[in-house]
Amino acid sequence: MVERSLVFPAAEFRRRVAGLQAQMDDAELNALLLTTPADIFYVTGFLTRFWESPARPWFVIVPASGDPVAVIPAIGAALMGRSWVRDIRSWDAPDPDDDGVSLLAEALCEMVPEGGRIGVPMGEETHLRMPLATYDAVSGRIGPRRFVDATEPVRRVREIKSEPEIERIRAVCAVADAAFARVPEIAHGAGTLAGLFRSFQAALLAAGADWVSYLAGGAGRDGYGDVISPAEERPLQRGEVLMLDTGAVKDGYFCDFDRNYAVGRPTDAVLRAHAALFAATDTALDAVRPGMSARAVHGLLSASLRAHGATPAPGRFGHGLGISLTEWPSISPKDETILREGMVLTLEPGAEVVPGRFMVHEENIVLRAGGPELLSKRAPAELPELVP
Amino acid sequence: MVERSLVFPAAEFRRRVAGLQAQMDDAELNALLLTTPADIFYVTGFLTRFWESPARPWFVIVPASGDPVAVIPAIGAALMGRSWVRDIRSWDAPDPDDDGVSLLAEALCEMVPEGGRIGVPMGEETHLRMPLATYDAVSGRIGPRRFVDATEPVRRVREIKSEPEIERIRAVCAVADAAFARVPEIAHGAGTLAGLFRSFQAALLAAGADWVSYLAGGAGRDGYGDVISPAEERPLQRGEVLMLDTGAVKDGYFCDFDRNYAVGRPTDAVLRAHAALFAATDTALDAVRPGMSARAVHGLLSASLRAHGATPAPGRFGHGLGISLTEWPSISPKDETILREGMVLTLEPGAEVVPGRFMVHEENIVLRAGGPELLSKRAPAELPELVP
Repeated sequence: MVERSLVFPAAEFRRRVAGLQAQMDDAELNALLLTTPADIFYVTGFLTRFWESPARPWFVIVPASGDPVAVIPAIGAALMGRSWVRDIRSWDAPDPDDDGVSLLAEALCEMVPEGGRIGVPMGEETHLRMPLATYDAVSGRIGPRRFVDATEPVRRVREIKSEPEIERIRAVCAVADAAFARVPEIAHGAGTLAGLFRSFQAALLAAGADWVSYLAGGAGRDGYGDVISPAEERPLQRGEVLMLDTGAVKDGYFCDFDRNYAVGRPTDAVLRAHAALFAATDTALDAVRPGMSARAVHGLLSASLRAHGATPAPGRFGHGLGISLTEWPSISPKDETILREGMVLTLEPGAEVVPGRFMVHEENIVLRAGGPELLSKRAPAELPELVP
Repeated sequence: MVERSLVFPAAEFRRRVAGLQAQMDDAELNALLLTTPADIFYVTGFLTRFWESPARPWFVIVPASGDPVAVIPAIGAALMGRSWVRDIRSWDAPDPDDDGVSLLAEALCEMVPEGGRIGVPMGEETHLRMPLATYDAVSGRIGPRRFVDATEPVRRVREIKSEPEIERIRAVCAVADAAFARVPEIAHGAGTLAGLFRSFQAALLAAGADWVSYLAGGAGRDGYGDVISPAEERPLQRGEVLMLDTGAVKDGYFCDFDRNYAVGRPTDAVLRAHAALFAATDTALDAVRPGMSARAVHGLLSASLRAHGATPAPGRFGHGLGISLTEWPSISPKDETILREGMVLTLEPGAEVVPGRFMVHEENIVLRAGGPELLSKRAPAELPELVP
């Protein structure tokens, strides 16, 4: 029988499942129950924007050995049938009387011995994508088996990207590189900041993004007030600095980086902050190595910003990246995670330009044995100027 | 003090909170804890694509009386500060030692009497957007208070749209109408189905969408195999029927409807299915009234399809719509929900054209006392032809 696949050949998914099963063995888990778009895509290749509808829960079970089992709404059976997963059980969802509870409980009882431990990601950066009442009902049906936390086993495996994954992230970074290069042209006719956001998303699509899951940004004279606001319907002003930060998606993989632009001549405070952020990023690109802690990278970026006369912004200075816009770890003073070869990360130092106004620089890297390899094209040392 | 707002004036949010508080009173809830983008936007107007990052949990508490309290990551404090919410408590997230647990537990203990009941949506079409371990930790801290299900109170209020909400949905439907009208032009140069998906998203943005959260579709000779797949990199073929289904977003509100196109001359089976789907939709547009059950609408659409010689597809034939792509209720044989004036719904009958191949029609309506009022522009009775 020909092996089917979505995005990657089946061998890639088998490797991932073997990695999870090794971690599950260490953690004494008899199965993993996965419910989120990212975890299910990771194991099966099942890629759809249908997750946008909260109407139906979806389940994939990874047993201690052997292949995963999908327990999913019937509407997804055809698409899952194109993946490497062969054991697909489906029900006519949404069903107010029994929305997958019986089918899931039966599968878990069949696959997990009595007294067994079923891992569910319950920790940092996870959530359960199913109604809590459904989870409780399934818990009540599977005794003497029980759910335990499985954040670490999933995280340990997902954090290290394979070469095919790195190639996908590199490809979507190139999409964003191409769109960022067109911002001076786009900004010229955009009218308002909101218009620019629309045109920039269209540029990402034209450059090959399948869709644009994230775009934020800001503009202001001495930096921007925050980095998560939607765009305002107001024109860009001469003297402002503009930042666009995108998470575009291609083949299920994200990029996540920003670029800054000067609208006419920037203020001296912006030029100083930009130079400090650029230098701090260079420092990290030179110095980060596997074996360092995430916390140490934050320290290194902060120290470099201070050495260049800038005030480090609060919050983290980067994070993991891949099948979610943000993944573990956090480059923050409290994250003791030891960085490992094959991690894909953002380096994202921020500086407070004047009180309450910030600038942020961001690059995407994969961590190799010898240090970071850029996946995004390095931002220009000099702030590009837009003609508004 | 001037009342601040996001998307709507504060009066709109006060009305929503009063509605929730009336339902909470009936359900004997001392507070509501909200964690999802939709619920938090509904109560506060806080609109950001930053939800795409799973790194941080966000909380809004609606007390039994008085204004809501936001307990949120510091990175969102500036944006939430532009909303009508005045009591904003924030922490430096993500924090592996205490990611909002203490701050949330303190707020709940302050706002809810001992022995009090705190509602959390736990039922159909809901999920808890926070790590399960965080939820368990907070549960352990708030005793003798406890979490109970609050799906019904939230659902009863969110299901009925205000006139300002209906205007927003009408506006984003008009965006999709404009983009669908351009499909014949766009398809001409798109090359592949995937290329067409990219161009169509760009057309939605050009027509005024803030972003495009959902696009699915399919193409095939006698209908499409499923309605949730991403687009393939293959050219459209003469004789196929193409379907595009979009959930575009403007000001935080979704449209959700599809359109079908013939690529050259369609097959007779497609023409028959199209005519039956069009007639069934007309029947529902004429006959649906407040007081009917969702189940009865499904029955009415199925009977009309059969009367026109078509085989009803499995699955539901529509659903609620608004600040999520899909909301309660489901137009399905098992949903006994009584339809009420002010509900915004999709009418989405599907037919099996030949075994395993389907067609789906979709319109967006608001249910008035006298029956449905279209929010989408009625699809053409005759299948538009594309020149591939």
